[in-house]
Amino acid sequence: MPGNHTPQLLKVQNFTVSRDGFGAGEGQSLERPFGHADPRTMIAWAGATASWPNRTDAGGSRGLDDYFTRDFHHNIGAEIMGRNKFGPQRGPWRDEEWRGWWGDEPPFHTPVFVMTHHERPSFTLSDTTFHFVNADPATVLDRAREAARGKDVRLGGGATVIREFLEADLVDTLHVAVCDVELGSGVRLWESPKELLDRFHLEVVPSPSGVTHHLFWRK
Amino acid sequence: MPGNHTPQLLKVQNFTVSRDGFGAGEGQSLERPFGHADPRTMIAWAGATASWPNRTDAGGSRGLDDYFTRDFHHNIGAEIMGRNKFGPQRGPWRDEEWRGWWGDEPPFHTPVFVMTHHERPSFTLSDTTFHFVNADPATVLDRAREAARGKDVRLGGGATVIREFLEADLVDTLHVAVCDVELGSGVRLWESPKELLDRFHLEVVPSPSGVTHHLFWRK
Repeated sequence: MPGNHTPQLLKVQNFTVSRDGFGAGEGQSLERPFGHADPRTMIAWAGATASWPNRTDAGGSRGLDDYFTRDFHHNIGAEIMGRNKFGPQRGPWRDEEWRGWWGDEPPFHTPVFVMTHHERPSFTLSDTTFHFVNADPATVLDRAREAARGKDVRLGGGATVIREFLEADLVDTLHVAVCDVELGSGVRLWESPKELLDRFHLEVVPSPSGVTHHLFWRK
Repeated sequence: MPGNHTPQLLKVQNFTVSRDGFGAGEGQSLERPFGHADPRTMIAWAGATASWPNRTDAGGSRGLDDYFTRDFHHNIGAEIMGRNKFGPQRGPWRDEEWRGWWGDEPPFHTPVFVMTHHERPSFTLSDTTFHFVNADPATVLDRAREAARGKDVRLGGGATVIREFLEADLVDTLHVAVCDVELGSGVRLWESPKELLDRFHLEVVPSPSGVTHHLFWRK
């Protein structure tokens, strides 16, 4: 077991972007949560693995990509996400019926902090509780760390929220899977992974599935 | 979470061999547990990672190799090892003072089944209990699966024990790290990883650290 010196990390995990650096396409809506991008193509690398949570049969690959899929919950005690990951609505809530994309059993199993200018009451679905917070990244991270009870915090995206936390220099590790799709426009994570090299180590690991895993950790 | 169809796998994890296929050198002894091989060189790739259990400072890499190090305990409920991994003695026990290489806090945290022709009483150190079993691989695996209570079983090595379980076709996945060292002789795992391709998928993933991860799973 790692010693007690282990800090509570803020980690981006399994975040997929296009070859040209977009985490989602343009025109996000209820029908097209990733806009003009096809999420099935973007996350095909994860969906093919044995540890993919929505898998309905016993198959699936157990190679490199499966390590990333099954690491998703490792020592994670809370998630932070942007409102655009939580749902397709923009502006004030017209009603509070929307409870996320994930049905009655969300795949988080921890407290989730949704960053939004439009707060609403917390609610719980199975073992996931959603909180809505109108605050800056450092304040939201403080709340998530407290809720994580010593474990790490996942920064779930989308790309805009990840950029905000990078700008505030609050991110400790990033795993970004670059898939072999070109989107041309949308919600951008980066122009190039090189933008992060002043602050992060980078390992670039091509997977046989066609995605290229980018692993960053603080210098 | 994976569904209930998930079987209890038998997994080889983080097993390191030389470029020429040896898991340990010749002349294993109390002073040289890996014989003429230098274990520090063999497992340097794991020792450099942030998740290495014996790490005493907060540093360490968080790239590809760290995924393998921190995956070591993922869903593992028991370990099977050969007697030569447990200790340097051969033949009947002269005394039962020897309690493994790992001190009072062994890194397993589960029941461990030691395969030996010379049984002795079980004992517990911290949260690891060692059992000594004189039986064939299938029987030992049955006992380990029962002790693992639905979780997977790790096949901890050495190379001879892994070969026995492969011969009995009981292994579901293998992660073997091939390091850039030539031993010339010793305890052999394989002549070549190609020997397993009739029964296993294989992904070969070179790491920036210099080891090459070999990931096998059943066809």
